[in-house]
Amino acid sequence: MQDPASSTRSEPDFAVLRERAYNLRWATVDGDVIPLTAADPDLPVAEAVTEAIARYVSAPHLSYGPPCGLPAFREAVAGHFGREKRVAVDAARVLATNSAASALALVARHVMRAGDEVVVQDPVDFLVAESARRAGAVLRTWAPDGGRFTLAGLRAAVTERTRVIAVCHPHNPMGSLWTPAEVAAIAEFAAGRGIAILSDEVWSDVVLDGLPFASFAGFPGAWVVYGLSKGYALAGLRIGAVIAPDAAAGGRFALEAGFEHTIEGAATLSQVAAVAALEHADAWRAAFLRRCAAQRDRARLRLGALGGVRLGEAPQATFVCFVDVRATGLDETELAARIERCARVRVVPGSPRWFGAGAAGHLRLSLATTRAVLDEALGRIEAAWPAVAGDASGQGAKSTM
Amino acid sequence: MQDPASSTRSEPDFAVLRERAYNLRWATVDGDVIPLTAADPDLPVAEAVTEAIARYVSAPHLSYGPPCGLPAFREAVAGHFGREKRVAVDAARVLATNSAASALALVARHVMRAGDEVVVQDPVDFLVAESARRAGAVLRTWAPDGGRFTLAGLRAAVTERTRVIAVCHPHNPMGSLWTPAEVAAIAEFAAGRGIAILSDEVWSDVVLDGLPFASFAGFPGAWVVYGLSKGYALAGLRIGAVIAPDAAAGGRFALEAGFEHTIEGAATLSQVAAVAALEHADAWRAAFLRRCAAQRDRARLRLGALGGVRLGEAPQATFVCFVDVRATGLDETELAARIERCARVRVVPGSPRWFGAGAAGHLRLSLATTRAVLDEALGRIEAAWPAVAGDASGQGAKSTM
Repeated sequence: MQDPASSTRSEPDFAVLRERAYNLRWATVDGDVIPLTAADPDLPVAEAVTEAIARYVSAPHLSYGPPCGLPAFREAVAGHFGREKRVAVDAARVLATNSAASALALVARHVMRAGDEVVVQDPVDFLVAESARRAGAVLRTWAPDGGRFTLAGLRAAVTERTRVIAVCHPHNPMGSLWTPAEVAAIAEFAAGRGIAILSDEVWSDVVLDGLPFASFAGFPGAWVVYGLSKGYALAGLRIGAVIAPDAAAGGRFALEAGFEHTIEGAATLSQVAAVAALEHADAWRAAFLRRCAAQRDRARLRLGALGGVRLGEAPQATFVCFVDVRATGLDETELAARIERCARVRVVPGSPRWFGAGAAGHLRLSLATTRAVLDEALGRIEAAWPAVAGDASGQGAKSTM
Repeated sequence: MQDPASSTRSEPDFAVLRERAYNLRWATVDGDVIPLTAADPDLPVAEAVTEAIARYVSAPHLSYGPPCGLPAFREAVAGHFGREKRVAVDAARVLATNSAASALALVARHVMRAGDEVVVQDPVDFLVAESARRAGAVLRTWAPDGGRFTLAGLRAAVTERTRVIAVCHPHNPMGSLWTPAEVAAIAEFAAGRGIAILSDEVWSDVVLDGLPFASFAGFPGAWVVYGLSKGYALAGLRIGAVIAPDAAAGGRFALEAGFEHTIEGAATLSQVAAVAALEHADAWRAAFLRRCAAQRDRARLRLGALGGVRLGEAPQATFVCFVDVRATGLDETELAARIERCARVRVVPGSPRWFGAGAAGHLRLSLATTRAVLDEALGRIEAAWPAVAGDASGQGAKSTM
């Protein structure tokens, strides 16, 4: 692949990404492979972020932060939810965590007891189910209906013994987004049965097409997990947050999970970066969201023309594309391996390990790269498709109907 | 108190510390109180550290790091143990963690099962015992003998059911250091009985007077926890490490603890800072250790002259001073409260919450500040001592015999 000849502040430096981007990405693949894998943007972070980091260390004291996060961080997250997600969140409900992933596991351990029945979506990002399993929960599956997770599907999954409903909202890998009315209906359904909600809202900063996002943080009894890896490209800083149902519940969580003992907590410098992102990177994120929407449209147009590939509803959120490849007749893992071998592009197979059994027969592609890299990757997949998909390769028009 | 009129790179900026230093320190005390509390130096970090951070973010990509830590971090920790602690450690044994405190809790959970009998020192930093309790262990106490933790004391604590010996080495709060021969004897004793060792070596970079430090990492079956908060003043970055007994054991730990699922891990920027500290801050640390030794000597001279204060052996490591105040006839919590009220200095009482029952009747003072601040604090304590300690205040000469 041709790397861009020179990088500007708004374009990636692929030489740096090859050194730094792990988790199935540039630093881990063969030199000629394009990774459309982990959901971590290739784009440089906002200047406000790196400036804030440099300014902070220009006063060279890196002492202990407060157990539940810097006041500025807690206020920035609360303010961001107020402005961007239109829900009033008191800063006292916010705790800074060592990534959204860590937050999810800690909250799951706090709200679930071994043997508790927990409803999780299937498919869903593996961390939601993994966190519940680690807490010893018994999982029950909420399957989508026509590409959406509906209240009817939830009713079918819940039993008398359900203690928690754990959701990914917006949804990875499907890219679906509940309307404010749907969120309210789910929250009311759960509250009426005394069931807690654990909502992974790490994707809530990547809502496309100007659609509104409704957070579960606006409803009683819900635990919300948030992070800055998706919407601000800060995965390496491992900075996330828990929004507890109220300050008292947050305090009990902080004690049980070890925040008050310095066992848990987030690096102060990562919090400083997050504050800068949340308060001074609106323009960066607006441009990023336009790019995500454009990449989604380009990818769907070209992937949908491949034989044996079926597109679902257009994602309303996230920067991933989740496509149904069952009509190729090939197992998703075999198909992903062939794509890497023949097209030198790595994608994530919809295997149970990543997204649950409900992802079988699907591939997930992450699109938060440049237009040039995405075009190159799609071009390679198109060129290799007859070798990859064999007999199904000519069935594009039919299979996408 | 008079803040230094101006700060240089080698002197603290107290205005910044009042904003940033939490965990019982400058940001949390009344404006006229000097905190000699949490073991977190007041000193600015090494220039190499802040330069490395600024250089790293000048290429503005902050992507996912590898699950068990950057290769450069794992190699830097291994190299540091080789050079400074004279033990050959393969980088494959090293995992980057979100602080030493987090590492301790994770390793405890990995090597202990609920109901396991675990030997812990008493007194000892609360995190060692807390980590074992969180893992569900039944604690047995290893008491010091004449100010030292001896093999005889260990033998008395161990039973047929002991599964783990968890130690703090060098020892906080006593400042004691085992000789290489003592370490070998403890390791051999444990190995002979099939008992694992969990060694908290977060203080191993603060060994004074040129004494040798022997790490348990040189012995089979030992788990070592390390961190950069004490020796390099990086507490806010929450960067630590686990050194597993071998690479395979480290891999199993990484899987069980969630490193392989991004649930656990350390911020890449914190790792970058740590690499700079370990590889380019030798001069900074040498000056820091000279300062720690000088502050120790000054503090002991003056504290030992106070009525009712008894000094133990001079600390061979750490920058804390742990003094016996039982001869004042006052409870340590009451005494600490009086010192804060009368002398406007905060110290840590030797209460079970901080150091175990064995710390009763003691106070701990952290000394890693400037000579001027330490002198001011000691002067205030001396002036207030009659009001603080009452009848015992004149018994200095006798009680320190």
